[in-house]
Amino acid sequence: MAGSEFGTILRVATWGESHGPGVGVVLDGCPAGLPLKEEDIQSYLDRRKPGQSRFTTARAEADQVEILSGVFEGKTTGTPVSMIVRNTDQRSRDYGNLMELYRPGHADYTFDCKYGFRDYRGGGRSSGRETIGRVAAGAVAKKFLESLGIQVRAYTSAIGGISIDREKFCWSDMEENRLYMPDREAAARAEAFLEQKMSQQDSAGGIVECVISGMPPGVGEPVFEKLDGNLAKAMMSIGAVKGVELGDGFLAAESSGSENNDGFLMEKGQIKKRTNHSGGVLGGMSDGSDILVRVAFKPTPSISRSQKTVTRSGEETEIEIRGRHDPVIVPRAVVVVEAMAALTAADMLLLSMTSRLDRIQEFFRK
Amino acid sequence: MAGSEFGTILRVATWGESHGPGVGVVLDGCPAGLPLKEEDIQSYLDRRKPGQSRFTTARAEADQVEILSGVFEGKTTGTPVSMIVRNTDQRSRDYGNLMELYRPGHADYTFDCKYGFRDYRGGGRSSGRETIGRVAAGAVAKKFLESLGIQVRAYTSAIGGISIDREKFCWSDMEENRLYMPDREAAARAEAFLEQKMSQQDSAGGIVECVISGMPPGVGEPVFEKLDGNLAKAMMSIGAVKGVELGDGFLAAESSGSENNDGFLMEKGQIKKRTNHSGGVLGGMSDGSDILVRVAFKPTPSISRSQKTVTRSGEETEIEIRGRHDPVIVPRAVVVVEAMAALTAADMLLLSMTSRLDRIQEFFRK
Amino acid sequence: MAGSEFGTILRVATWGESHGPGVGVVLDGCPAGLPLKEEDIQSYLDRRKPGQSRFTTARAEADQVEILSGVFEGKTTGTPVSMIVRNTDQRSRDYGNLMELYRPGHADYTFDCKYGFRDYRGGGRSSGRETIGRVAAGAVAKKFLESLGIQVRAYTSAIGGISIDREKFCWSDMEENRLYMPDREAAARAEAFLEQKMSQQDSAGGIVECVISGMPPGVGEPVFEKLDGNLAKAMMSIGAVKGVELGDGFLAAESSGSENNDGFLMEKGQIKKRTNHSGGVLGGMSDGSDILVRVAFKPTPSISRSQKTVTRSGEETEIEIRGRHDPVIVPRAVVVVEAMAALTAADMLLLSMTSRLDRIQEFFRK
Amino acid sequence: MAGSEFGTILRVATWGESHGPGVGVVLDGCPAGLPLKEEDIQSYLDRRKPGQSRFTTARAEADQVEILSGVFEGKTTGTPVSMIVRNTDQRSRDYGNLMELYRPGHADYTFDCKYGFRDYRGGGRSSGRETIGRVAAGAVAKKFLESLGIQVRAYTSAIGGISIDREKFCWSDMEENRLYMPDREAAARAEAFLEQKMSQQDSAGGIVECVISGMPPGVGEPVFEKLDGNLAKAMMSIGAVKGVELGDGFLAAESSGSENNDGFLMEKGQIKKRTNHSGGVLGGMSDGSDILVRVAFKPTPSISRSQKTVTRSGEETEIEIRGRHDPVIVPRAVVVVEAMAALTAADMLLLSMTSRLDRIQEFFRK
Repeated sequence: MAGSEFGTILRVATWGESHGPGVGVVLDGCPAGLPLKEEDIQSYLDRRKPGQSRFTTARAEADQVEILSGVFEGKTTGTPVSMIVRNTDQRSRDYGNLMELYRPGHADYTFDCKYGFRDYRGGGRSSGRETIGRVAAGAVAKKFLESLGIQVRAYTSAIGGISIDREKFCWSDMEENRLYMPDREAAARAEAFLEQKMSQQDSAGGIVECVISGMPPGVGEPVFEKLDGNLAKAMMSIGAVKGVELGDGFLAAESSGSENNDGFLMEKGQIKKRTNHSGGVLGGMSDGSDILVRVAFKPTPSISRSQKTVTRSGEETEIEIRGRHDPVIVPRAVVVVEAMAALTAADMLLLSMTSRLDRIQEFFRK
Repeated sequence: MAGSEFGTILRVATWGESHGPGVGVVLDGCPAGLPLKEEDIQSYLDRRKPGQSRFTTARAEADQVEILSGVFEGKTTGTPVSMIVRNTDQRSRDYGNLMELYRPGHADYTFDCKYGFRDYRGGGRSSGRETIGRVAAGAVAKKFLESLGIQVRAYTSAIGGISIDREKFCWSDMEENRLYMPDREAAARAEAFLEQKMSQQDSAGGIVECVISGMPPGVGEPVFEKLDGNLAKAMMSIGAVKGVELGDGFLAAESSGSENNDGFLMEKGQIKKRTNHSGGVLGGMSDGSDILVRVAFKPTPSISRSQKTVTRSGEETEIEIRGRHDPVIVPRAVVVVEAMAALTAADMLLLSMTSRLDRIQEFFRK
Repeated sequence: MAGSEFGTILRVATWGESHGPGVGVVLDGCPAGLPLKEEDIQSYLDRRKPGQSRFTTARAEADQVEILSGVFEGKTTGTPVSMIVRNTDQRSRDYGNLMELYRPGHADYTFDCKYGFRDYRGGGRSSGRETIGRVAAGAVAKKFLESLGIQVRAYTSAIGGISIDREKFCWSDMEENRLYMPDREAAARAEAFLEQKMSQQDSAGGIVECVISGMPPGVGEPVFEKLDGNLAKAMMSIGAVKGVELGDGFLAAESSGSENNDGFLMEKGQIKKRTNHSGGVLGGMSDGSDILVRVAFKPTPSISRSQKTVTRSGEETEIEIRGRHDPVIVPRAVVVVEAMAALTAADMLLLSMTSRLDRIQEFFRK
Repeated sequence: MAGSEFGTILRVATWGESHGPGVGVVLDGCPAGLPLKEEDIQSYLDRRKPGQSRFTTARAEADQVEILSGVFEGKTTGTPVSMIVRNTDQRSRDYGNLMELYRPGHADYTFDCKYGFRDYRGGGRSSGRETIGRVAAGAVAKKFLESLGIQVRAYTSAIGGISIDREKFCWSDMEENRLYMPDREAAARAEAFLEQKMSQQDSAGGIVECVISGMPPGVGEPVFEKLDGNLAKAMMSIGAVKGVELGDGFLAAESSGSENNDGFLMEKGQIKKRTNHSGGVLGGMSDGSDILVRVAFKPTPSISRSQKTVTRSGEETEIEIRGRHDPVIVPRAVVVVEAMAALTAADMLLLSMTSRLDRIQEFFRK
């Protein structure tokens, strides 16, 4: 249980380091019969690929995915879908000088504590490249969800202190800026802000939001395997994430019951909520409204400014991190948030099939 | 996998409804040889017991725990520790009128969606009484952690918008007010605020913080089973929780790398961090600093003010919730947060024993 | 993961020792809407109850089950079903002298190796009383399976070397003898054989067979979670079991492909097998035929004859085990085999619901 | 939970079909610091490679393993070890005519029932090639166990009805015959027997035995996660296995307590057993003796003799299976049994580290 796996019915196992031969994922439990080809996955990988703008690392990786198993004649067979992306641009010498130092804000020190030594090249297993496996598996999960009418979409809602204006929210704006912000004005300000950070040899954090729509009510388990609990774990499992909220989140702590409770009403013969402070989850189960998750990312820890640190052998020193690093991780993390949300939603949806005897009887009666 | 279980090595399974014969827990995987008696657990249960102040429900429950297994001659045997608390004050008629209505902010509607019907008495499985099992198991986990020099302590940091002043933080203050706030002045203001809410037939939310100190570095798994990820899931699994942060949390999203990175230094021959913006976790693994978790609770959804809702059969109506309810859940949730943190920390600590060959060889050489 | 739990969707957690306050089980993941009352369970517990014939221990236990949760208005709610049986006849002094000795064939020595000490009263957790929890949970699983037209039935096929004659197999015979053998003549011979063993202060083993009929084809996962693999684990988890076979079992090793392969044919428009050497499982998945499991039990290790052993402190000595013990465990194990088969079958049936996209789409389309 | 995964702490996930691009495995939870190179694994793969004798399929596969992750500077890092073997000799046309037929004794029919369709080329996921991943992971597990003084060795004990003579048991004989029988005379007779089967266009089964020696006592969990239970499941998860025994196995059912119980004695200050009828496991936990497992394999179902079957569309027909098939699977299965035993033993050994408080305290005190 070294924890490179995620999910209960739909199971993901990622593997691979930044500077090894490649990275990949095994997705077990994907239902049989889902049309799937490499291009379906490639389009997601391209969204997290480095080198797409001045705000992402210049590392040049093709990130071409190969499906190794689990697909036959264009459809998933129900057996594990194994996918691999070869690493092609591994300049190990860039990292060699970091072998003996602990970079602040990185997991170098904790890896050494846990395992006695570490693959010090490019963050090893804590590298952002680990998320390639998540995104590839998440692409399959999204395709599965879409076949059931469920959508998962994430976007950048803030870079540093610059937030989108909810009044100006526009999905199409998002496609037009490299920060994936659905508000072109906020995006322009955020870009200027990032330029400034870069000139200061510094970095920034931000917030990603994700919306799951079309989820039937009753998905999620009411005690320890809550839908929101699993989403929180999924999000926190992404590097650099420091906080997760559902719906009104921390603001709810300052609200009152009369404001925060979402009343019910009837709409075209269907039970609906009047508002959505809950973020689509009540008692750990989906309530039929949009599921809203907010995820806080800390600033990229790799900065070229001088920082105080220590060596493995216990001497105080200073470090300046050279190499290719994103001044902000948020834009490339958007697709990772989307992937983790899709994997969680698909897994819990499948789990929810076994909750009622009448529906089980109907299923087996055929 | 209906999810009434939590943990990997140290496994908790809670059971029981608000108005059934009782509630309880089975704790499997507790190491053999831990001194344990019922009083160890009772003191924790007493902290969450209702009827202790005007801000908690008047329901009168003795909440006496009985240990049914797993302890022999005053020590745990390594086999499951089963614990039960009988429900004694179940006034079902208080709830009978809610059978056909969906209470806003509650899980009534989602339970019906998931299972086709529900035990409508007192929230059934989503009742706060479910947490009795968590607190009982958490008491054992805390005792186990303490035997290794690890402390887990939670407190109320905010009620509604009233927060403690970090400058005036005082552990002993916490014992002196029923809100468990470690700042007596903030507590006084919060009590006045709650009086006002009650007079308005309304309710409030708040924030609980938890500190785990003494955790050795390297605990937590670096990808999907991160220490912070599991803490987030554990906290989100508590009813009414809408957000979780580690360390600086959402504030980190507005910070810069140069501010947010915690530099290292040497202190008495040990590697330490200069600051603790990370909240004690780097790359999903403990970094030797205090682990800091913040948890946002929404306002109690049960309010006697009239609210708009619908019936099971789909008619719009209004509801006024009578009965015994806390105007704020936060003070009683403090010990639940502490329990879930202890269970998570103990579980991941045990998991961390298998990470290094040299230490495994040493373990079995004996 | 101290392993007092079993199953993936339908989860069982047993607890309790022979001489503690009681034994019990938490069954999580039972679908909502199954009619269930205590009598449904009691009839199964009565089948394993001691004191029913001269071939079972004289320990007098009422073994009255109490359902503590998960049932409301006569139906399961989908939440954990917690069940308890209080121990009433615990004569600890019978066992006190065994505190310092290791009984041959028992787990005394291995418990001490694992945990450093043990609850030495009556086998502690390795007592046959642990199976009460399994039988109670199995009764629920059987009821669930029956609601889908699936039957699980076990019987004694051999006591010592005395086997039933397949030509004379008769289900109703089984009800008429305390050995649960479906062949009255074999039962008579087995009873005489057991009398002889008892007079020799010795004990016997035997074989239990179990048939699962009505299982739809395609249940079971094709690699590590095979239906037969999980049945094997389930059976081996019962104390005293030393071997498990599916279908022809070990005899298949001496057969040839042309004999052992089950040809297919059409029967009323349905695909059927001409024979059933496979025991109802092909490639780990049910093939629509009866599933046949054979389970070998070793002789009861508790015998009053003198045996060579050692003390905890490492001195050689002899031991004579007094107290109340079954000369053969097999008759009382029949219902335990049935329970474990039902739990395994129900769990894998539920798991099988998520294998095909077309059926999942149909399920959520409603 | 489609079940392509195995283990709790040491986790294996295999992937790949007979006629896809390749097969492979991800091994998660391997402790850091184990020296590992591709040759360590290749020697095991070579043992199961086809084309080594006239009794194995003529399919020519190099079966060259590539380690893709988890190893740095010659040692495991504690992160997932991903390994791949490319398929090179895939003659799909050999199997094309089987697309519409169900081969008796194979999983063709059950795959179609479960998933709605199947990759009909060479058995797809039920192909013997799936075991490559198991053997590769098992090689790592064996290396880990050997570093702790634990040996795992398997051999053929019977082909058809021809068994080894225990009096003539000789490990070195095993290396000298392609059947891996540790008795050269039995091997010679078995070879003649197989020649005859081949001339009859028929096939044979057999028995593999496995010995785990050096295991410390107390490994295995006493209820559902017994060491023998997990071994049984592991063995049954290998294709064509129909029975599993521990120690005396089914013979124990005919024995008496006085014969079957293993008395204890002192040997050089250590507690030992006088005999080993139990096969090294008492109450689900290792007892310090050799652990003995026997595994029954059915005859290879692929025979060129004509067999009765049906088509997918439900017409009765006959089938003659051409192509390259082993007349007996047993010799190539020996290393698979060894691999599964090693994976199980290593996993349960790691799990056993968390059972005692005193040893945990010692571990963290350092």
